[in-house]
Amino acid sequence: MEITLKREALSSTLQNINSVVDKSSTKPILSNFVIRTLEDDSSNVEFSSTDYELSLVEVMPAQIKDPGSICVNAKKVFDIVKELKDDEVHIRSTEQLWIYITCGSSELRLPSVEVGLYPQTVLEKLPESVTISVEDLKSCIDMTLFAAITNESRRNLMGVCLSSTSDQQTRWLSTDGHRLAQIIKSVDDLIIDAEQEVIIPRKALTEVRRAADMFGKTVNITFDSRVMQFSGGQISFKTRLIEGKFPNCDPIIPKDNNLEILVNRENFSNSLRIVSSISSEKLRPVKLIISAGVLRLESEKADYGEVVDEIEAGYEGESFQIGFNARYLLDVLGVIDSDDIILECKNSMSPTIIKSSTDESFLSVIMPLRVEW
Amino acid sequence: MEITLKREALSSTLQNINSVVDKSSTKPILSNFVIRTLEDDSSNVEFSSTDYELSLVEVMPAQIKDPGSICVNAKKVFDIVKELKDDEVHIRSTEQLWIYITCGSSELRLPSVEVGLYPQTVLEKLPESVTISVEDLKSCIDMTLFAAITNESRRNLMGVCLSSTSDQQTRWLSTDGHRLAQIIKSVDDLIIDAEQEVIIPRKALTEVRRAADMFGKTVNITFDSRVMQFSGGQISFKTRLIEGKFPNCDPIIPKDNNLEILVNRENFSNSLRIVSSISSEKLRPVKLIISAGVLRLESEKADYGEVVDEIEAGYEGESFQIGFNARYLLDVLGVIDSDDIILECKNSMSPTIIKSSTDESFLSVIMPLRVEW
Repeated sequence: MEITLKREALSSTLQNINSVVDKSSTKPILSNFVIRTLEDDSSNVEFSSTDYELSLVEVMPAQIKDPGSICVNAKKVFDIVKELKDDEVHIRSTEQLWIYITCGSSELRLPSVEVGLYPQTVLEKLPESVTISVEDLKSCIDMTLFAAITNESRRNLMGVCLSSTSDQQTRWLSTDGHRLAQIIKSVDDLIIDAEQEVIIPRKALTEVRRAADMFGKTVNITFDSRVMQFSGGQISFKTRLIEGKFPNCDPIIPKDNNLEILVNRENFSNSLRIVSSISSEKLRPVKLIISAGVLRLESEKADYGEVVDEIEAGYEGESFQIGFNARYLLDVLGVIDSDDIILECKNSMSPTIIKSSTDESFLSVIMPLRVEW
Repeated sequence: MEITLKREALSSTLQNINSVVDKSSTKPILSNFVIRTLEDDSSNVEFSSTDYELSLVEVMPAQIKDPGSICVNAKKVFDIVKELKDDEVHIRSTEQLWIYITCGSSELRLPSVEVGLYPQTVLEKLPESVTISVEDLKSCIDMTLFAAITNESRRNLMGVCLSSTSDQQTRWLSTDGHRLAQIIKSVDDLIIDAEQEVIIPRKALTEVRRAADMFGKTVNITFDSRVMQFSGGQISFKTRLIEGKFPNCDPIIPKDNNLEILVNRENFSNSLRIVSSISSEKLRPVKLIISAGVLRLESEKADYGEVVDEIEAGYEGESFQIGFNARYLLDVLGVIDSDDIILECKNSMSPTIIKSSTDESFLSVIMPLRVEW
């Protein structure tokens, strides 16, 4: 193979490629990536990498002198290419599996691996399909992924559940057992079996989110019960879906929370940070004391001190108090973008809804904490 | 004690205080700091913290309602104060050693410690004295500290040696045994015994450098053989000096290196980064092959590949080659600010001088590396 590429485009492609590559090094072959010329396209080459679960395929323009394919260490190439300065990068392989990369006066020789040893990623035609604007996809990911579980304790919660509503919108849902986040988004185009419900793994959503602007304006999401593909512009991600059943969260979303408290989002975040800053625990318990017009926040009373704060609140009912992990509240406040937010409570023991004051499409439910101080 | 402070000033003072505070927590008392009102000054309070080696004393304006002193956890107060938003912070202590901090609607109660238990920092009148502009002090630190040793293997090299030259300039010198850095700087005012030579510890220089802009325009450095003080504006650092003798480096600085190579600093740095990027070793060995007009750089030839690069060089002599740890070269190139630098070599085995093409005050010496490829 012998090709010439634009350095800047190469560098940004390698960054995407490299973040999909498996860092654990338990399977050395997965530290590589593949460049191949395409049979029916003489002006583009295809880059691909995979960690078995998630794959990325990216096409970029190239001058092709000699078609072929190479498989080479992703991190080494990325580390070196990002230091190069000239406009064009020339890549040539020999039959002895040496790769020569030249750029300006710099010349680099690297060993490579038989392409046949590397797991190939094949994009498929899949039955279910959603076309969504990139901006909507970003917010669907941002507004749900934070509530998905991060450890391996419950694999079926380590991602976001995608399904369709009865009125042909997409429903994105995540939960870690203590809180849930849900956003309902209408899309340009939707073909999903009413019964179909899939769990998209965390890593895939993180990478898709990171590279989202490269899709262009819209993303086509296709899937079946095993795999999902995100395609747009010159790039495609393909991921395995999480096997297993996502729990039915509908019974957890309260329908009769009749205590409604309106607070300024920024003031609330700020007070939560002040009041929780004294706690050394990760989840930082905090007590909210709600009375007409006022939301009072209190930290735990501990050996190392205590903090209280007060902010204005739109509330007219009876006083009551409720405890939360401040971290959970801050996570939700961080993804909502309206000036004010609404807390919908029932009592100190029942799940509370947090939502934007202006946008009905999103809601988060947080289980309260028993506060004993 | 009862005082009111400006929040922004408090926050920046606490940041300084907190970075001096001992993080190792082997001596719990050192996680605190002290605020005290001053006997002869009713409009300022004094903040101080120490880790026994290094102390910081900073004076800031305050409204004082009730004089006194408190000793309280530095990190807790810093973490909370940085989240506060109102303009003024009110601090009050009770006889039961509770500290109440209020700011706007936020109220905070913290336990404190008897001030008497905390090691007091007393600024002294010391015999030797140097007055130096803050900009010069910054560059003296930047241009030497990088070459000081970072581990505990040789305590007398864990800092920068300050002495005076015969023509009444200051000499700043550091070495880790593989390289040295020296800057000669004339100062506004200098009273140093010709024989006096002190070793300033790394942590003191790092903190002084970080807070340097707070000294104002000039810093007064006073010292004897045990301690050194840096004073300017409202702040003073006091540090113990490193005991022991700094090695005599004069014999190591070559006098007869007659091969002079002029290279563009940025091109050289860039090539070093390219060529060393393939190495996984920390110090990244690199070979320089110098011939008329050209500097060629070669990485080690290893299993994982090799890289070469070439840049223009002002050199007219015979070809020769010499090896270095790229990390050491990059460190020096990072502190020099001229467009071009000069390498002064003798042969492949002898120490090489690296200096600016425009400024004679600084030089660095690096021991070459035996390259066997």
